[in-house]
Amino acid sequence: MPLLVMKFGGTSVATLDRIRRAAKRVGREVANGYDVIVIVSAMSGETNKLVGYVGETSPLYDAREHDAVVSSGENVTAGLMALTLQEMDIPARSWQGWQVPVKTTSAHASARIEEILTDNIMAKFGEGMKVAVVAGFQGISPEGRITTLGRGGSDTTAVAFAAAFEAERCDIYTDVDGIYTTDPRITNKARKLEKISFEEMLELASLGAKVLQTRSVELAMRYKVRLRVLSSFEEMDDSAGTLVCDEEEIVESKAVAGVAYSRDEAKMTLTEVEDRPGIAAAIFGPLAEAAVNVDMIVQNISEEGKTDMTFSLPIDQVKRADKALEEAKARNEIGFSELLIDSDVCKVSIVGIGMRSHAGVAAKMFATLRDEGINIKVITTSEIKVSVLVDRKYLELAVQALHDAFNLDRAA
Amino acid sequence: MPLLVMKFGGTSVATLDRIRRAAKRVGREVANGYDVIVIVSAMSGETNKLVGYVGETSPLYDAREHDAVVSSGENVTAGLMALTLQEMDIPARSWQGWQVPVKTTSAHASARIEEILTDNIMAKFGEGMKVAVVAGFQGISPEGRITTLGRGGSDTTAVAFAAAFEAERCDIYTDVDGIYTTDPRITNKARKLEKISFEEMLELASLGAKVLQTRSVELAMRYKVRLRVLSSFEEMDDSAGTLVCDEEEIVESKAVAGVAYSRDEAKMTLTEVEDRPGIAAAIFGPLAEAAVNVDMIVQNISEEGKTDMTFSLPIDQVKRADKALEEAKARNEIGFSELLIDSDVCKVSIVGIGMRSHAGVAAKMFATLRDEGINIKVITTSEIKVSVLVDRKYLELAVQALHDAFNLDRAA
Repeated sequence: MPLLVMKFGGTSVATLDRIRRAAKRVGREVANGYDVIVIVSAMSGETNKLVGYVGETSPLYDAREHDAVVSSGENVTAGLMALTLQEMDIPARSWQGWQVPVKTTSAHASARIEEILTDNIMAKFGEGMKVAVVAGFQGISPEGRITTLGRGGSDTTAVAFAAAFEAERCDIYTDVDGIYTTDPRITNKARKLEKISFEEMLELASLGAKVLQTRSVELAMRYKVRLRVLSSFEEMDDSAGTLVCDEEEIVESKAVAGVAYSRDEAKMTLTEVEDRPGIAAAIFGPLAEAAVNVDMIVQNISEEGKTDMTFSLPIDQVKRADKALEEAKARNEIGFSELLIDSDVCKVSIVGIGMRSHAGVAAKMFATLRDEGINIKVITTSEIKVSVLVDRKYLELAVQALHDAFNLDRAA
Repeated sequence: MPLLVMKFGGTSVATLDRIRRAAKRVGREVANGYDVIVIVSAMSGETNKLVGYVGETSPLYDAREHDAVVSSGENVTAGLMALTLQEMDIPARSWQGWQVPVKTTSAHASARIEEILTDNIMAKFGEGMKVAVVAGFQGISPEGRITTLGRGGSDTTAVAFAAAFEAERCDIYTDVDGIYTTDPRITNKARKLEKISFEEMLELASLGAKVLQTRSVELAMRYKVRLRVLSSFEEMDDSAGTLVCDEEEIVESKAVAGVAYSRDEAKMTLTEVEDRPGIAAAIFGPLAEAAVNVDMIVQNISEEGKTDMTFSLPIDQVKRADKALEEAKARNEIGFSELLIDSDVCKVSIVGIGMRSHAGVAAKMFATLRDEGINIKVITTSEIKVSVLVDRKYLELAVQALHDAFNLDRAA
């Protein structure tokens, strides 16, 4: 029997009525001849409520107890989904992480799945069960304690089940109807992609397109799990959504697949830093210790043994970074004359596996921004991505101009 | 190390602040030198919410999924209580039913505890843990599914743990401060009992004093677990509450320990029933099948082969009983001329192990009611109880008069 994994996020199971709507989609796949494993999140709001309880009870909480508390929301949804399917005369039952079992590391609150035993669930499929409903986001540690996988962990649960059970596909139902060439709120020319490669999706996920948890995409890429992202609020339609898949499945070969952005960036510059071996480590070591997520880094050409060092970071980490650097200076670990902070910047990126074979993509990006009068402050590139830091006031203009320049409103 | 079991009901853990107050009581017992097993209910309202979800999803629900859903409330409280204790620097951790494990029957939604394995928790006590926080109301079936024990099941969990771990005492924290000679809302002369025997408590519990689940008292009696009922809202005081214990521990020897009542009773009378062997079975068989809880039964003296049969039942079961009896009559299984229904009655009972040795207790009860002009409609007696059915309008008067007549406002 072919097998599908279907995952429903918090907004897709927020009410009993939405659970029924989700169950109908499951029922359709059962009617299509599939055995189905359904992965559910907690009803939206529940996990936040429980996390709030834990934080209020104990600011420096025991992560093992945190996990025991916050995993309960998924258990509720799993039972309710099983009951809903039974009401539709579909043989179904629920599984909690420890019942499957989903074996994870002991890294509570951010555990990694190590193994999913398939015997128990496969035995039930063998007995005529059509749907296994599994509580997402959770597992069991070697010590027998409940673990959770971190925010968005239900996506990872879904992909891991699809890999372990060799599912034909893993459908992620969410509150958007697919992956777009850019944020439709920025330009109404944004176009839904029919397919996108794992690599592109990874760049987009980490650039702020919050549709899929990054780790779930990594896992899907490693095990070649075909992922489909689609909305649980749209009419049912087999061609709906976006397929995230191996690049071999993608025929169209545009240079750029999409334009991503990250609005709340800041830029810090240390002027007249002594240019000596180890200076980068001396600067970025204290920042890492202060849990600052440094993103782009630029070091200017050295003059007379001095250089300027510029980096970008999330705007809400500026204070922490400032403190860490001033303290390092006070300890004489680093020397600089000024610490300049620019809190009015944003990051705009173009992403596409086609860049590997298309020349001049970065040059076209820079020319497009120049033509709009947008000054570029920092540039970084990877094999399939070019990112620039620009003034925040240009965010919409830059995204729209790049979307037009690369003809993203039209399919290849 | 001596060991205590402390159980906190839903109102005692309804908010994070109340959980902190409960944890302080636990901390005091740890300071007194005890290892403590804490049994927690769900935060009040949570279980009702989950039961509501299940009922709305599936009117004839799969009890296994029901249990998987409704057990989650206790898991949340257990984790939060463990975190709260840790914040007070008390080594604590939470256990869910399957982790202990608490082995139960497969009778989902009303499972019975068959065995509690003590090894895991005792090992942690051996490693320096001071408090084991256990989610009440739940266990695991032989099939590995989550079970629940039915309403009030956390009391039963607490007593079962006290028995399995040979606890010195089992303290049940609730929203009343002990067992009273009668309902203080009926007479302000009601007095809190220092001690009460298991047998008396059982009669009071089944008569409508809803402080303890009947099954938990039965279990405590069988394993001689000393139960203390006390309020989590009063000041801490070692002499607080009421001890429910073996009658050998009770020195005072009053004839009557308390006056109980049940307000919403009804009386049904079948007139001119044919008086033949098997007629009682013919009447009460269909009632049992209709899930009618018949309580008191009186059969009048037979005249000319006919008799009147009277019984009492909860008022909300009258319609069901009426239908069952009329249908039995239509099937010619029973014959009667009239079916009289009196929905305006209540039951008043006196309970006391002292009745065994004190003569004339029932006579004094009847005389007391006669002096108040209260007509008795039905009487039943057991070894330690006398119950009467009277018009509901006399409920307060009857309770007050009996409380006075047996001097219950004064300790023995």
